[in-house]
Amino acid sequence: MSNIDVNDLPLREELRGEKAYGAPQLQVKVRLNTNENPYPPSDALVEEVAHEVALASKELNRYPERDAVELRTALARYISEQTGVQVGFEQVWAANGSNEVLQQLLQAFGGPGRCALGFTPSYSMHPILGKGTQTEFIACPRDENFRIDVDAALEAIKQHRPSIIFITTPNNPTGDVTSLEDIATIVEAAPGIVIVDEAYAEFSDSPSALTLLERFPAKLVVSRTMSKAFDFAGGRLGYFVADPAFVQAVMLVRLPYHLSSLSQITATVALRHSEETLGTVALLAKERERVAAALNDMGYQVVPSESNFILFGSFEDQHEAWQAFLDQGVLIRDVGVTGYLRVTIGLVEENDAFINAARAIMESTQH
Amino acid sequence: MSNIDVNDLPLREELRGEKAYGAPQLQVKVRLNTNENPYPPSDALVEEVAHEVALASKELNRYPERDAVELRTALARYISEQTGVQVGFEQVWAANGSNEVLQQLLQAFGGPGRCALGFTPSYSMHPILGKGTQTEFIACPRDENFRIDVDAALEAIKQHRPSIIFITTPNNPTGDVTSLEDIATIVEAAPGIVIVDEAYAEFSDSPSALTLLERFPAKLVVSRTMSKAFDFAGGRLGYFVADPAFVQAVMLVRLPYHLSSLSQITATVALRHSEETLGTVALLAKERERVAAALNDMGYQVVPSESNFILFGSFEDQHEAWQAFLDQGVLIRDVGVTGYLRVTIGLVEENDAFINAARAIMESTQH
Repeated sequence: MSNIDVNDLPLREELRGEKAYGAPQLQVKVRLNTNENPYPPSDALVEEVAHEVALASKELNRYPERDAVELRTALARYISEQTGVQVGFEQVWAANGSNEVLQQLLQAFGGPGRCALGFTPSYSMHPILGKGTQTEFIACPRDENFRIDVDAALEAIKQHRPSIIFITTPNNPTGDVTSLEDIATIVEAAPGIVIVDEAYAEFSDSPSALTLLERFPAKLVVSRTMSKAFDFAGGRLGYFVADPAFVQAVMLVRLPYHLSSLSQITATVALRHSEETLGTVALLAKERERVAAALNDMGYQVVPSESNFILFGSFEDQHEAWQAFLDQGVLIRDVGVTGYLRVTIGLVEENDAFINAARAIMESTQH
Repeated sequence: MSNIDVNDLPLREELRGEKAYGAPQLQVKVRLNTNENPYPPSDALVEEVAHEVALASKELNRYPERDAVELRTALARYISEQTGVQVGFEQVWAANGSNEVLQQLLQAFGGPGRCALGFTPSYSMHPILGKGTQTEFIACPRDENFRIDVDAALEAIKQHRPSIIFITTPNNPTGDVTSLEDIATIVEAAPGIVIVDEAYAEFSDSPSALTLLERFPAKLVVSRTMSKAFDFAGGRLGYFVADPAFVQAVMLVRLPYHLSSLSQITATVALRHSEETLGTVALLAKERERVAAALNDMGYQVVPSESNFILFGSFEDQHEAWQAFLDQGVLIRDVGVTGYLRVTIGLVEENDAFINAARAIMESTQH
């Protein structure tokens, strides 16, 4: 084996000393760290996937349909139903996870000499995608309750003139939503485009930012994913909805044939089963309320959540607390917010295990 | 519907007026335009894919194994056998098609202020990937026989000091190979990394550039794909083989969970069937020789090929000739090389249809 170190290679300077992104993939019994939907796909869905994949496999030697029109049509139908905003396939773009969708938007609208503004703490991939596309990332901190401070936002927009603004709602890792009114105020002031990242929208009763699309067609993009509510993290399917001009824009930077034929057909099948899959979302929302109440009762600080996770604290040393949960067999997430940890809502028994661990940890710190 | 044009959006300046990349996906009976393997996967492979996908689908709600170690181990085993160079999984990296693999290498080793050198005509995605990653692309033209002019190469390296050099062998769209000696000379002179793009290696009897890896561990990367010989264009699986330090480097820029669990398992199954799949490669190589001889006999110029396609000419207007083939029901590719067209080797009857069309066209131009 070689004894070359990665820093011996002619890497870009800004990557030297960096660590690869990613939560630890540990083999722990109760894994509540990556906001997955804990309910496995139904037998009917699995059966239909196997059937359709077998059919599609017979043509695996052929390149996939490059523009994935059938899948985008299925996504448009779903989004029209779920949000009440009627959209067609030419307004929908899909890729391998919302990370790829966001990267394509940054390639088309960001890049060297341009900057992106985000309201932190928020989805930790936004700045990393900025780095990967040479787009400077400007962090505008949220207020002490983790809400977007609209005055600070307007000031940051004025100062930095960002080409891209990210608004994550419900926000990850805090779980709270930003009102349509606040979103509209920010879009109004934006000199470039605004990406409303609605990865967790299905867990919330608040209206989608898509209801603002008619008002801001040349500025607003709403990104979504099938990883969370949709039970499809392993399938890697993210998408955005916007004016058709945005779809034409990302087609200038997307890698040709980026979505495999199996990804296209499997996601299309999953969308056919959306009703049964999304039935689990209601269960998870109910469990979220139960877990939040239990944490509150124990004396934890709980950030109000409309997603499938809860940010809670406060800990003197959140990394030490993360380890304490792990020692109890419960893997949650240290998202780098001082004093807080994030727990994903799991199956009833997983949530019970988490609540028991949280109680034990609270009791041990009070002695 | 909106009446916004893509150029009304705040696109990056260099993307304005660009067209989306991609060969026309036309519904023609004989499609010999994208270098696919025309032989469909075997029934045994299709059956095993369906079975494994059904199993994997039960956990679609979970994120995939982020580093795809099982698949990379299968690729390492295959490469060790196919090239005779023993490699381990830590030397192999996989992504959604070789385009994504190359994009990741450009993100890590190219980018603003750096340039990539290629020997044109060659794979048309190299400059496009350069644009997408803000890496300047320098074209060093091949000689009149479409071979790399090593003196011109060394001069260009001296002048431009490229961070990345692309050597495609067998070269697309010309089909010829570059000798190991010439590759070594270029790697020796390279100030940065050299990516030897071996997308068509299985169709050639020439040795792989991997045999040079021990000599140039900190410079050489060999990229490959399962799209061509492997009958897997629809599955989208590209990979590279290099020193483990290169794998660590791309892990700094890869999107987390970029490869779906279904892509990982399907490619792993396809690798188990490599012996039967690669049986078709010998058939295609034989057909390539038959088609080349027929074209030669008719008076066409034929560039010697060790791949699954042939570049041939010469035409006064190659786009007009492309249309003449299409009018005869045969879709081939105008790759933008003046006077030449590229035909993929297909099934025996498809090659017959192509030869008949070529004869008719040659005869009509002689009247």
